[in-house]
Amino acid sequence: MGFDRKDLLGIQDLSSAEIEEILTTAEYMEEILKRPIKKAPTLRGITVANLFFEPSTRTLNSFALAEKRLSADSINFSASSSSVLKGETLLDTAKNIQAMEVDVIVIRHSAPGSPHYLSKKLRASIINAGDGCHEHPTQALLDIMTIKKKFSTFKDLKIAVIGDIKHSRVARSLILGLKKMGARITVCAPPTLLPLRMEPFEVDFEYSLEKTLPEKDILYILRIQKERQGESFLPSIREYIKDYSLTYEKLKKFASKGVVIMHPGPINRGIEIESNIADSEYSLILNQVATGVAVRMSVLYLLSKRKLNGYKD
Amino acid sequence: MGFDRKDLLGIQDLSSAEIEEILTTAEYMEEILKRPIKKAPTLRGITVANLFFEPSTRTLNSFALAEKRLSADSINFSASSSSVLKGETLLDTAKNIQAMEVDVIVIRHSAPGSPHYLSKKLRASIINAGDGCHEHPTQALLDIMTIKKKFSTFKDLKIAVIGDIKHSRVARSLILGLKKMGARITVCAPPTLLPLRMEPFEVDFEYSLEKTLPEKDILYILRIQKERQGESFLPSIREYIKDYSLTYEKLKKFASKGVVIMHPGPINRGIEIESNIADSEYSLILNQVATGVAVRMSVLYLLSKRKLNGYKD
Amino acid sequence: MGFDRKDLLGIQDLSSAEIEEILTTAEYMEEILKRPIKKAPTLRGITVANLFFEPSTRTLNSFALAEKRLSADSINFSASSSSVLKGETLLDTAKNIQAMEVDVIVIRHSAPGSPHYLSKKLRASIINAGDGCHEHPTQALLDIMTIKKKFSTFKDLKIAVIGDIKHSRVARSLILGLKKMGARITVCAPPTLLPLRMEPFEVDFEYSLEKTLPEKDILYILRIQKERQGESFLPSIREYIKDYSLTYEKLKKFASKGVVIMHPGPINRGIEIESNIADSEYSLILNQVATGVAVRMSVLYLLSKRKLNGYKD
Repeated sequence: MGFDRKDLLGIQDLSSAEIEEILTTAEYMEEILKRPIKKAPTLRGITVANLFFEPSTRTLNSFALAEKRLSADSINFSASSSSVLKGETLLDTAKNIQAMEVDVIVIRHSAPGSPHYLSKKLRASIINAGDGCHEHPTQALLDIMTIKKKFSTFKDLKIAVIGDIKHSRVARSLILGLKKMGARITVCAPPTLLPLRMEPFEVDFEYSLEKTLPEKDILYILRIQKERQGESFLPSIREYIKDYSLTYEKLKKFASKGVVIMHPGPINRGIEIESNIADSEYSLILNQVATGVAVRMSVLYLLSKRKLNGYKD
Repeated sequence: MGFDRKDLLGIQDLSSAEIEEILTTAEYMEEILKRPIKKAPTLRGITVANLFFEPSTRTLNSFALAEKRLSADSINFSASSSSVLKGETLLDTAKNIQAMEVDVIVIRHSAPGSPHYLSKKLRASIINAGDGCHEHPTQALLDIMTIKKKFSTFKDLKIAVIGDIKHSRVARSLILGLKKMGARITVCAPPTLLPLRMEPFEVDFEYSLEKTLPEKDILYILRIQKERQGESFLPSIREYIKDYSLTYEKLKKFASKGVVIMHPGPINRGIEIESNIADSEYSLILNQVATGVAVRMSVLYLLSKRKLNGYKD
Repeated sequence: MGFDRKDLLGIQDLSSAEIEEILTTAEYMEEILKRPIKKAPTLRGITVANLFFEPSTRTLNSFALAEKRLSADSINFSASSSSVLKGETLLDTAKNIQAMEVDVIVIRHSAPGSPHYLSKKLRASIINAGDGCHEHPTQALLDIMTIKKKFSTFKDLKIAVIGDIKHSRVARSLILGLKKMGARITVCAPPTLLPLRMEPFEVDFEYSLEKTLPEKDILYILRIQKERQGESFLPSIREYIKDYSLTYEKLKKFASKGVVIMHPGPINRGIEIESNIADSEYSLILNQVATGVAVRMSVLYLLSKRKLNGYKD
């Protein structure tokens, strides 16, 4: 009964009841984080490997802190690690880690589907911490929890997701999750940053930021990933800023009064968002970060529960 | 009485009784790793520094996990660490680490004999995690333990070590260890990958893989270290594959029925070993990895015993 | 009553009474480090982020060990970390870390004043682990403690600080601290390595090493930071060695009998100091390193005391 999965691969697989259970457990984890001694022995003796083949600061540290605060043992592998350089395959690397009695593998990899591939081959629990342009489920879960804490319900909540939808695993997971929870979503981007086929998303879309802003409860601003765009999808950053950067002026002029701003970070101040908005009372950006640790504690706990209960794999 | 050393520098120094004691202690450590909470407070308050001047994934992580599971505190230094770049000598780096009340230094270094040099200058216990082409004792110990678990005895066991014997510290330590335990060893390599003087090894040698395969209990395949061979010892990888790669076909045709395959990893699939053999029922490769953590826990414990018993250095 | 600060930004801010309290607490920490199990649960549940934007081995490891031995949880960020490469501002990085319920941020940064800037914006305690050419307070504190253990008093103690005063945050913090404690300081350097304005330091200065050496209790040798001097302040290293390198010969000829040698490390053997002096009975260099861990434990504890006592920020 309740959440009983080996892996967390994507939001796509989860029912709204499972999402709710993750959030409820995360609320309990937040209690732990409010104590003077923010630590519980819950995952003592459980070993987690953080296998990050793409660079990361906030996601890696958020997982690392979640692991420490639940007293798990953890080891980190990086993209530049030796065995990868020596030409070992991903599966061999992962099987080696598993052979060292690792219980959970948190993986970030540029290849979409790599966590799913490992999940079929390994006994260890797999958590997808971002696979290419595909999914980033713990980011979506922390976003959904941040929204729940602010609005209590998702029913008829109107959310605009603004920016590079095409390349964003954050957008993909978030849209999948919010739709399961019953929210209404509009995506807004220049045509080159929208997926070629929008139908599978079942969302409204809009090219104009001015037309997108009114009557929304949440504006979710995506990061322009300058470091990722080998190919150029934008005529120029300057034009993007002119048309799509969220400025205080546009916010005041077009957006509804109680609107809140979210962003997965790290923010490019002055590019997708005007600097002063990020620090304003509209912003939930740091709430998202704070919620992230609790959500990751929740996921780590829910996936390890079976093992802790003596389940033999 | 019993194991009473400050350092583990090489297999050369160990008696067969000492090797047996390390294995017996490692068997006890495996019990810990089978518990639901795979952790013991044995080395609480002991500090270990992992000083890796050459890249490593599996050995470093195997030590890191061994340390965590015995509750030691550990810090990692890497080849690219600042003080090395700033021109500090190895001995100064190590003395600085020791001054911070570090009890055990695990060192991997390209210079043969560097652990031996530090062991004479420092009070801290030194564990050799690979010194140039010289020794890699914990790898040999985990290999010996893997063999013991499979065959119970070493008496009259026939083992072929195949590949780049000349540059392999793994081969050197393994051959030294297996001979102490009473096994019979054949090495097989192209002439350019054999040491110039074979006599000190007191083993049989053979250039032909076909002639090597029959009547062996274990085929220990070495890694072709493409990244290490600045000079070229091979006419070409393609020729090596033709003559020395272990294929399923050769195995079926020449090897005895109950033969097992071992490899220190990371494996080059399709080079020294055909991909499907690595994953076959013949392979003990992942058993080796699993055994590695227990063996390192054993070594860490045996070297720290004196300190834990209040021995003053 | 007693030490009650949120941050440790520099020696400049501290009273001599506060310095004394840090040292007294560090003496208690040294007791812990002498126990068979060198560990206390003092900072259990406290989270420390080590945010090193400049390379470091000894300072980072010294902090890391101090944190582990007081049972704090810690995470490390490095200069090459992803969010920095992605163009995130220092303040955003730090605010994100704080949002993950981090209690203490240890920061090393090339920009002078960056810890002070963060301290005004963040609730988390900030420890300056070196900010450009400005301050390096924990180094000065460990130096002062090393001196206190050797000489018991600072009254009329005569100390020469020799080398690159101009670029040295170590020299700056040390001089500020020793003056507060009542010591008498002479700085000795070639004119190009002295600050343009010497008055604020209120110390004697001297261009000649020969004239500096007599009648001193302590010779504090600074490191020639070859890796830092993009601009050239020295005609050549060879000339510096001739005029300013501390050799055994100069020491015997000019220095007083009971003199001791200190150096913040890593030492350039044969450049600012002759190799055999560093290892001689004159040298307190490894004592400095050992004292460093205790001093950092002391600072971490004193800054976290308020939080541990249930102080709400």
